[in-house]
Amino acid sequence: MARITGMEVLDVRFPTSRELDGSDAMNPDPDYSAAYVVLHTDGGPDGYGLTFTIGRGNDVQAAAIAALADHVVGREVPETAAQLAALSADLVGDSQLRWLGPEKGVAHMAVGAVVNAGWDLAARRAGRPLWRFLAEMTPEEIAGQVDFRYLTDALTEDEALEILRAAEPGRARRAADIAERGYPAYTTSPGWLGYGDAKLTRLAEQAVADGFDMIKLKVGGDLTDDIRRMKLAREAVGPDVRIAVDANQRWDVGAAVSWMEALAPYRPYWIEEPTSPDDVLGHKAIADGVAPILVATGEHVANRVMFKQLLQAGAISVLQLDACRVGGVNENIAILLLAAKFGVPVCPHAGGVGLCELVRHLSFFDYVAVSGSTENRVIEWVDHLHEHFTDPAVVRDGHYLAPAEPGFSARMHDATLRRFRFPDGPEWTENAR
Amino acid sequence: MARITGMEVLDVRFPTSRELDGSDAMNPDPDYSAAYVVLHTDGGPDGYGLTFTIGRGNDVQAAAIAALADHVVGREVPETAAQLAALSADLVGDSQLRWLGPEKGVAHMAVGAVVNAGWDLAARRAGRPLWRFLAEMTPEEIAGQVDFRYLTDALTEDEALEILRAAEPGRARRAADIAERGYPAYTTSPGWLGYGDAKLTRLAEQAVADGFDMIKLKVGGDLTDDIRRMKLAREAVGPDVRIAVDANQRWDVGAAVSWMEALAPYRPYWIEEPTSPDDVLGHKAIADGVAPILVATGEHVANRVMFKQLLQAGAISVLQLDACRVGGVNENIAILLLAAKFGVPVCPHAGGVGLCELVRHLSFFDYVAVSGSTENRVIEWVDHLHEHFTDPAVVRDGHYLAPAEPGFSARMHDATLRRFRFPDGPEWTENAR
Repeated sequence: MARITGMEVLDVRFPTSRELDGSDAMNPDPDYSAAYVVLHTDGGPDGYGLTFTIGRGNDVQAAAIAALADHVVGREVPETAAQLAALSADLVGDSQLRWLGPEKGVAHMAVGAVVNAGWDLAARRAGRPLWRFLAEMTPEEIAGQVDFRYLTDALTEDEALEILRAAEPGRARRAADIAERGYPAYTTSPGWLGYGDAKLTRLAEQAVADGFDMIKLKVGGDLTDDIRRMKLAREAVGPDVRIAVDANQRWDVGAAVSWMEALAPYRPYWIEEPTSPDDVLGHKAIADGVAPILVATGEHVANRVMFKQLLQAGAISVLQLDACRVGGVNENIAILLLAAKFGVPVCPHAGGVGLCELVRHLSFFDYVAVSGSTENRVIEWVDHLHEHFTDPAVVRDGHYLAPAEPGFSARMHDATLRRFRFPDGPEWTENAR
Repeated sequence: MARITGMEVLDVRFPTSRELDGSDAMNPDPDYSAAYVVLHTDGGPDGYGLTFTIGRGNDVQAAAIAALADHVVGREVPETAAQLAALSADLVGDSQLRWLGPEKGVAHMAVGAVVNAGWDLAARRAGRPLWRFLAEMTPEEIAGQVDFRYLTDALTEDEALEILRAAEPGRARRAADIAERGYPAYTTSPGWLGYGDAKLTRLAEQAVADGFDMIKLKVGGDLTDDIRRMKLAREAVGPDVRIAVDANQRWDVGAAVSWMEALAPYRPYWIEEPTSPDDVLGHKAIADGVAPILVATGEHVANRVMFKQLLQAGAISVLQLDACRVGGVNENIAILLLAAKFGVPVCPHAGGVGLCELVRHLSFFDYVAVSGSTENRVIEWVDHLHEHFTDPAVVRDGHYLAPAEPGFSARMHDATLRRFRFPDGPEWTENAR
């Protein structure tokens, strides 16, 4: 019987603000970072997880992960569905730490990193990529991962089982199908707010040439600029490629509606994060005001209770799952089931550092064992920082290839950890700003 | 011109779990704690603030406060309304730290602690208790403290000014009035879940003898127990004293409604935290299901955007302001204005450690300069840990006395800080558990 013998937490930061990669209306100068966790074991592989942050405060996030050590160190390495459910329940249920959320922000993301590292460990030991490991569980085992507290007015365990059982017959066929054709992707690379017009046009044209049928632009800084950039993008990609726009929470309800009216002639596909991620009723008002443009959110939605309400209210038409914002795989299974119940497509948030690597597993699993569909579903792709991972996400011809290595793909190269460790790695000591 | 020369952050914990004080359905064994911050200056008094937590993770909270040092150290000591508004805006607006919330959880409570310490500093320098310092500002200065982002669909700056101007004429009279009669209080001391029946009865009778016309019981552990305890409490206090009940987020929507039906014969006044603090739509469904029993929440409501929706949806009839959960005085001014706009009474959450000391200032201010009323308003009182503060809250005859010392009352005695510092204070080294 193998045990978790230690938990190591690292503060790893990449100096992305130097190039304005990742710049948007609310995040002018992010340094993409990871609070990175390793679960060491006394037999077999270690487990890896992370929380994505954008720089300052990554040390606080790391401290929050470290505060969970007593729940995992000395614990039996989780292998079974029951052990994985218990790990999540113990971490979420710490009655003193719960006060720091509950189930939101730094404390909850810390839970997510450790839960994800536990799943990585289990999938590695099983010799399966996480999506296959998950998709080979029974409906009962999958539903058993979910904390249904606060969900039962929208989704009961029986309803979840019904969804999972309905998808059971076609699993093998869909797993083979998605491994063959890959999962549809869209690219945000052309659209950062800090990029000039020429770069935007060039990257948008490149995206189409690379096989993407959807791109995304950041908006919300200046309306005149946005109209010009949207027009350039539309000209660059032609009439048939979808262009999503992303305001990164910049607006109030009224501003969101009027701004989108001005962009409507260029046919934006969705407006993402038009306002506060906490504002369920605001998103609903915006959705009513901007239809037929879709409303999308999720990367900052704190937990399953918020997603539940966004779905109950009809406030979103696109659910943007994030692998590292909520309480890890277990809560993301709950969110996938909620989306399936309400018939809303899941189009995960990715980019940052590691998010593409992780979240693809959840979409592949969703296709095989939950929703059974890729219709109107697409995973974000930002071609950035993948070289730091031992099992990097790969997109070809506008599709994510199926991950094949065992685990959940959060592991970074040792050389990366040494170089980018903050504040003492050479990337930071040799390039002091 | 005085400057802030340093920021000190301390992890202070009280071993309250030894006596089951503070035990409820979700928090069986809290160790009431404070992540305590001191803003040192080079002239005049220092400033004090805190975040209340319940034990584990208080170190994470302290780390989150420490991460804000660059925003305050070296800064001019805030004295004017404009400087206080700028302090809050700089802290809330840090674009990298914002990712850790946004505006919720550990990162946001850290902002609240530092913002509150800034107000403490300003009020001390002005030689005024915070409530008077605030209530002597102009309507424009008060409204200028508020970040109206995400609020304008419910409350615009013009509407806020209208509310404040309407309350301006009676300010002097109300300040004299409330200083004379004190602010109505209710007591939670009888009702902790860990207390036996005899203790409950004795403390409930004592509460009435002490002049309280409202008490609160914790519920949500076991229905049979709750019915028995509610019956005992009703017998102890008689028909006219209000009994609020508090489930500390224990239930789903359906369970909340049926549980309250069982308690209804004993006429509970409000049901507090029936479900997740994030569940606006759930609170609304519960409110519809339990009427005429009122629904109350707030101590875990993350920010003004959540309060806005609870009010917009008609989900709460009682708003439980908390001095330390949100982004400090500035955001609490926004919340008081929202409550005034929607005509919902504010009955602050208190107890813990330091919450009574701080939040009374906000209710006194609300009466003088915002709502102008104490009707159906009452501040929670728990007679616990006040001896550790240099300006402790005092309740007499069921009323909070008006704070008279300069500042915001978060300062603890030096002897307390030495004794209860975690993990190296003698309270912890000499009583290792």
